[in-house]
Amino acid sequence: MPRKITGPEIERLIQLLARLPGLGPRSARRATLQLVKKREQLLVPLTEALARVRDTVKICSCCGNVDTADPCAVCTDPTRDPSVIVVVEDVSDLWALERSGAVSARYHVLGGVLSPLDGVGPDDLSIAGLVDRAADPAVREVILAVNATVDGQTTAHYVTDRLRDLPVKVSRLAHGVPVGGELDYLDEGTLAAAIRARTPF
Amino acid sequence: MPRKITGPEIERLIQLLARLPGLGPRSARRATLQLVKKREQLLVPLTEALARVRDTVKICSCCGNVDTADPCAVCTDPTRDPSVIVVVEDVSDLWALERSGAVSARYHVLGGVLSPLDGVGPDDLSIAGLVDRAADPAVREVILAVNATVDGQTTAHYVTDRLRDLPVKVSRLAHGVPVGGELDYLDEGTLAAAIRARTPF
Ligand SMILES: [Zn+2]
Ligand SMILES: [Zn+2]
Repeated sequence: MPRKITGPEIERLIQLLARLPGLGPRSARRATLQLVKKREQLLVPLTEALARVRDTVKICSCCGNVDTADPCAVCTDPTRDPSVIVVVEDVSDLWALERSGAVSARYHVLGGVLSPLDGVGPDDLSIAGLVDRAADPAVREVILAVNATVDGQTTAHYVTDRLRDLPVKVSRLAHGVPVGGELDYLDEGTLAAAIRARTPF
Repeated sequence: MPRKITGPEIERLIQLLARLPGLGPRSARRATLQLVKKREQLLVPLTEALARVRDTVKICSCCGNVDTADPCAVCTDPTRDPSVIVVVEDVSDLWALERSGAVSARYHVLGGVLSPLDGVGPDDLSIAGLVDRAADPAVREVILAVNATVDGQTTAHYVTDRLRDLPVKVSRLAHGVPVGGELDYLDEGTLAAAIRARTPF
């Protein structure tokens, strides 16, 4: 903005909101004005909610899920099948699979994919933790629910190789997942079909 | 979500973010995970920025702009032409006009438009305040920069009527503004052209 028309505190809020995925500078300005307009219904509760998350959020030391408890609600849920681990790239994929209701298992969040060009190697992902968990005799199957991208499939091959000596079945999602697509953008029916028709790897 | 997979504090944050303009449930989830992932660069500063805005934001008692000072930075800017008041519906329109750089005047935010169907009458807008300001002998022109909607034009007519007895010229934006369009979505060149070619009302 060429001249000062509002306070630095407000400019700062606009700048930070514009860094959220889905918001740009224009929508960040609109969001800021909406927050100011709905002070008691939105600004005050959102400030409080962010502070609570800032103070309570944890990354599950077992699976990598985002929760306020460690281990997380998924890892401590006794109704889930303890013999299956679903491996995902990101927490958003875990949440997407849960919304599909396609599987009642535990998860393992890799935290990304192997990507030599971006300098992401096996030690940058939680692959060692996955191998440890898969070595538990209770575990019989690992489902690789990674994105159908080149890096995702490279990662799936690498993980399969690391699990080779363990007595677990390794499977991957069926090709209901569109090639090049990302899990978090798929509809729940497609996700459910891909889980049901998963194939040996 | 059918089963508990994350903490209530996190669910609450997602719900509140989803109420911001431009974000829905899906992008609110992605924004929340981004915040958690970028704790120090994004979550902590955004919480702080929201708290600062919550504690310092004011609505300018003169023009209705959002700022941390009252009167606001626009009203106290000595380099602006004190003889012109630009009337807008909303603060977002004031900011959009400032970005266009088309005018160096003061503003008056009505806070909406007349809308009998929605129960919005003259007393719900800051029209009396505008008449007071326009009665200042220093003021020579009032530019009605309201949206080119039916309600916007009805409001412009009503405001013109209320200013009739004052020795001020009342003008409106040129028809560079697309019919039915909203100011905040226009590009800056169109806004600048519309200010330059404003016509007597
Ligand atoms: Zn967990
Ligand atoms: Zn002001």
